[in-house]
Amino acid sequence: MGKKGLDTKEHIKKIAYQLFVDKGFKEVTMKDICDNAGLSRGGLYRYYESTEQIFSEIISSFLTVQNTELQEQIDNNISAIDILNQLLEKYRLEMLDARNSLSLAICEYFSKKRIEENDNLLSQQYQMSFSSWDRLIQYGILRGDFRQVDSRTIFDLILFSYQGVRMYSLLMNISEDIPQRIIKQIQSLLIPVQKLEEYK
Amino acid sequence: MGKKGLDTKEHIKKIAYQLFVDKGFKEVTMKDICDNAGLSRGGLYRYYESTEQIFSEIISSFLTVQNTELQEQIDNNISAIDILNQLLEKYRLEMLDARNSLSLAICEYFSKKRIEENDNLLSQQYQMSFSSWDRLIQYGILRGDFRQVDSRTIFDLILFSYQGVRMYSLLMNISEDIPQRIIKQIQSLLIPVQKLEEYK
Repeated sequence: MGKKGLDTKEHIKKIAYQLFVDKGFKEVTMKDICDNAGLSRGGLYRYYESTEQIFSEIISSFLTVQNTELQEQIDNNISAIDILNQLLEKYRLEMLDARNSLSLAICEYFSKKRIEENDNLLSQQYQMSFSSWDRLIQYGILRGDFRQVDSRTIFDLILFSYQGVRMYSLLMNISEDIPQRIIKQIQSLLIPVQKLEEYK
Repeated sequence: MGKKGLDTKEHIKKIAYQLFVDKGFKEVTMKDICDNAGLSRGGLYRYYESTEQIFSEIISSFLTVQNTELQEQIDNNISAIDILNQLLEKYRLEMLDARNSLSLAICEYFSKKRIEENDNLLSQQYQMSFSSWDRLIQYGILRGDFRQVDSRTIFDLILFSYQGVRMYSLLMNISEDIPQRIIKQIQSLLIPVQKLEEYK
């Protein structure tokens, strides 16, 4: 696929992303996407056959981007604490940004199918996301930036509390201090006290 | 309301609970509840006017039961560690029991409305649930069972990681070790090392 094709796909995903955020998964149609992206039916179907295909590609792109960025920072020998704080700051902002949450769409998309069918996509994502966090945590331990922790435990805590807050943020007002408390706790699990002091 | 009326309400809530678990919130009708509870239309409407009313009562009962049980155990001077472990064990089993999760129904129920309307019910529940956990944590600190922790931080971590796992459990297979890791981490945040050893 040439550059023009790739650009069009990016454009479609960006438009579709906002529609999924606004309306959930069930209520978005291929026609909505055509209309909002300024494409003809043929123009859209050249790239995607269904909203499901677009949705699953959007979800995958998130992780790919995060993995690539993380690896670059590690390759550039940036402090693990800086990388961590930057990631957690991103998560914090996302937790507060209820209007941009895909949680309802994710709920609807995956609950339409049997768990076994999802398992490929979601379990894969869980694994990919873990291996990216594991890389960061091992790197931090090796550099002496982090405590000797079990990276899976920390990862589960980060992932699920993040998802829990994002789900709740659709349902009630999440005050600033909730993500802040969670993030502070995760930092203190990873970063030894004296290093935490240095970063204040 | 006499005992018979209260029993009928309990029966209705039990039947409705299973329907909400199986079908989410949107697809359950008052007729479904009549049919499954073996009640006439009039019999049901004497107690509840809508599925919304039944749903919000189900959610409230959970918390009331948890609060009452907790207070009883504290009044009986039971070790805070025992109370904690019992609660966490209950949470662990619920996290693994995807088929009994109300998460999809909760998502659908609350996302139907504007956040401001929900705020009464959900924020109230968040506060109630916090005050019950806070009571336990302060009691544990006072008895010397727990470390000097910030109870709100621990509460947020427990609540949101629990909710995150419950949501995910609708979508993918949650292996036994995920809730186990989360619970072990929470225990070790609360219980000092030497006390943890005693309980192994």
